[in-house]
Amino acid sequence: MDHDDYMKLAIDLAKLAEGQTSPNPIVGAVCVKNGQIVGTGTHMQAGTPHAEVHALNMAGLNAIDADLYVTLEPCAHDGKTPACTEKIIASGIRRVFIASNDPNPAVNGKGIRFLRAAGIEVITDLCKEEADFSNRAFFHFIQHQKPYVTLKAATTLDGRLATQNGNSKWITSESSRQNVHTLRHTHDAILVGVNTILHDNPFLTTRLPHGGKNPKRIILDRHLRTPKTANVLQDEAAETIIFALESDKSRTFSDSPYVHIEAIPEHTDFLDEVLTRLAKRGIVTLLVEGGSQVHTSFIQSRLANELYLYMAPKLVGNGPSLFMDSSRSTIAESEPLRILDVKQIGEDIRIHALFPTGGVS
Amino acid sequence: MDHDDYMKLAIDLAKLAEGQTSPNPIVGAVCVKNGQIVGTGTHMQAGTPHAEVHALNMAGLNAIDADLYVTLEPCAHDGKTPACTEKIIASGIRRVFIASNDPNPAVNGKGIRFLRAAGIEVITDLCKEEADFSNRAFFHFIQHQKPYVTLKAATTLDGRLATQNGNSKWITSESSRQNVHTLRHTHDAILVGVNTILHDNPFLTTRLPHGGKNPKRIILDRHLRTPKTANVLQDEAAETIIFALESDKSRTFSDSPYVHIEAIPEHTDFLDEVLTRLAKRGIVTLLVEGGSQVHTSFIQSRLANELYLYMAPKLVGNGPSLFMDSSRSTIAESEPLRILDVKQIGEDIRIHALFPTGGVS
Repeated sequence: MDHDDYMKLAIDLAKLAEGQTSPNPIVGAVCVKNGQIVGTGTHMQAGTPHAEVHALNMAGLNAIDADLYVTLEPCAHDGKTPACTEKIIASGIRRVFIASNDPNPAVNGKGIRFLRAAGIEVITDLCKEEADFSNRAFFHFIQHQKPYVTLKAATTLDGRLATQNGNSKWITSESSRQNVHTLRHTHDAILVGVNTILHDNPFLTTRLPHGGKNPKRIILDRHLRTPKTANVLQDEAAETIIFALESDKSRTFSDSPYVHIEAIPEHTDFLDEVLTRLAKRGIVTLLVEGGSQVHTSFIQSRLANELYLYMAPKLVGNGPSLFMDSSRSTIAESEPLRILDVKQIGEDIRIHALFPTGGVS
Repeated sequence: MDHDDYMKLAIDLAKLAEGQTSPNPIVGAVCVKNGQIVGTGTHMQAGTPHAEVHALNMAGLNAIDADLYVTLEPCAHDGKTPACTEKIIASGIRRVFIASNDPNPAVNGKGIRFLRAAGIEVITDLCKEEADFSNRAFFHFIQHQKPYVTLKAATTLDGRLATQNGNSKWITSESSRQNVHTLRHTHDAILVGVNTILHDNPFLTTRLPHGGKNPKRIILDRHLRTPKTANVLQDEAAETIIFALESDKSRTFSDSPYVHIEAIPEHTDFLDEVLTRLAKRGIVTLLVEGGSQVHTSFIQSRLANELYLYMAPKLVGNGPSLFMDSSRSTIAESEPLRILDVKQIGEDIRIHALFPTGGVS
C-alpha cells in the first residue's frame, strides 16, 4: 500500500455515504501507523461527526505520530460539529494527506494553514482529480449556488420518449424502473413539469425493496394547473414545491405543511430562478424526470449537468425525443456529452453521461 | 477439459474464419486422444479443405481410436472437396461429437448416418446452441434463400441519423468509422439507397490499416438515378449491382464488367425480390448502410435480422431517425430487439442487437 492506495481507500469509504450527506460533501478518512491501518471513517450524514473524527476515535492512542489520509480539507471552523483541525492536532497526528481543497472560498486553505501552524506536515492534491469528481455535485453547488442537475430519461433505440400519442408505458423494463428508484434515493429533489402530473399523476417517491429516502418533489407549473387531488399533494410522503408565475399564484392551494407554492416574478428567467430558490432551500442534487419540453429547457439553458439515459431495445418510429431543437442545422452544433459509463440493466442499456457543464468545473 | 471445453475450443477455432468462408459456414474441429489435443482445424475459405480434414491431417496416426469434436455435421456428399465422412472413417476415429446439424434439409443427418454405419459412435447436439448461433447467417441463408441482413446506423443519443438539413458529417468519431470498415470486411455485400450515392458519392470499400476484403456493392435505385460518374461505378474495386424497376431499365448504363443492372418487374415486392436475387448470387451476409428510408423499409418488411447502432454522445434536437413509422401509436406496437452486446468505441457506444427475425430461427 502506498499513499495513493490509502487515499483511494478513503475515497471508497467516502462513497459509502453517496447521496445521504447532503447538503454536505462525502468525505472518507484513513489513519495509518507503521504501514498498518489503525482507523477509518466516513461522514455518514449532515449533523453527525466528520470522517476524520471517526477515524481518529478508532485509532485512539495509535494516532500519535500516525498519517491521516482525508479526501477533503479538514474544517477549521466550528460548524455543527467541533472543528476537525483541532481534533487532528490534539490526536498527535504527524502528517496529513489531503485530496480535495475545500471549495468554499471563505474557508479554502484555512484548515491546511491551521494544521501547518501546529507543526503538522500537510501534503495536498493526492488523488485530487478522483476526489473532486466524487464531490462534483457539492462543488458545483458551492460554486454556482445552484443544484447539480441530472436529467433522467427512458427512450427507445430510436430516441423516442413516447409515441406521438403520448403513450410511454412501458418503454423500459422493470429492472430499469427499479434502478431509477435508486437514483431518486440519492437525490435531494426530483423535478417534473406539470404535464407529467396531469398525464401520469405520479407519486415520485422512492420505492426500493429495503426502503429509501424520498426526495422533495418540485413541479414546474407556471399557471398552477396541478389539481388539488394530485398524488404529490395528497400523500405527504415528502415536501412538494410548486413553482408558478407570480401572476398565477391567485388561490389558496393546499393547507398541508408538505405543500409550498413559490411565485416567480414575470420577466425573470424562470428556470434559472427556480434553481436559485432550490439552492437556497439546501437542495444540492436535483433529478429531472422530464418530459421532452422540460429536458429541452434545461439543455438549452445549459443548466443540465448530467444525463442518465435508459434505452430499451425497441424501435417505435415516431414521438418526441429527449431534446427537441430545430435551430441546430449541423451536427457540429449539437450538444456534446461525454460518456461516463454504459451498463446493461435487464434487457435495457443505461448510459451515464456528462454535459459540458457537468463534472468538476 | 471435458467434452464441452473441447467443443467450445472447436467453436473458437471456427470463429477465426468469421466473415471469410462465405458461402460456406464457419467450422472448427478438435481431435483428442487420451486427454491430449492431437489435431485442430478451421475451415478457412470456400474451396479449401474442411476443418475436420485439417485436424485429422495434423493428428496423423494419433487419430486412431481418438475423439473428434466438430462444430457442424461432417459432409457426406462430394462437394468441392472429398466428403469428410470418408476421411473420418479412414482415419480410425472412434467417436465423433457434433454441435450443429447440417441445416441443408437435403443432407441433414446423412453425415451422421454414414459415420454410424461405419461403427463410429456419434454424439450430437453438444454446445448446439452456441454453434448454431455462430452460423446464424448461414443457417438463415439456407432456410430462407435470402441473405442475413444487418443494418448499420450511426446516430446521436437522441436517435438522429442527420439534422433535418441532411447534415451528418460526422456524427460518430474516427474509431467508430474505422470499426464500420471491419463490418464491411466481414460481409459479402453492402447495400445503400440511391440517395446515399447522390448525396455522399461513397466508395463503399473496406479501408483497414492491413487491407481487407471489399464487399459487393448493391444500390436500390428504382428509377436508375445513379450517375455514370458515381465512384462505385468508376473504381472497379468490387462488383456493383444496381436494382431498378423493369420499366426504368431503359439505357445502357456501363460497359464495365464490374457493373450489373438487375431489373425487377413492377408489382413485385421490390425488396423481397432484391434479396432473393442476391441469394442466387451467393450473397449470404448483407450489410445495409441506410438512410432512414432504406432502414425503415427493411424493418417494416421484417427483412432486417440484426442491427449495429453506433451512438455518438451528442444531442442535436432534429432530423430523421433510423426508423420512421407513424403507424405505431403505442409502445407495445414497437419493434422489439434483443441486445447482444454493448461496447464503448472511442467516445461512442456500439449497440449490437437482434431483430425478432435475427439469430437462429
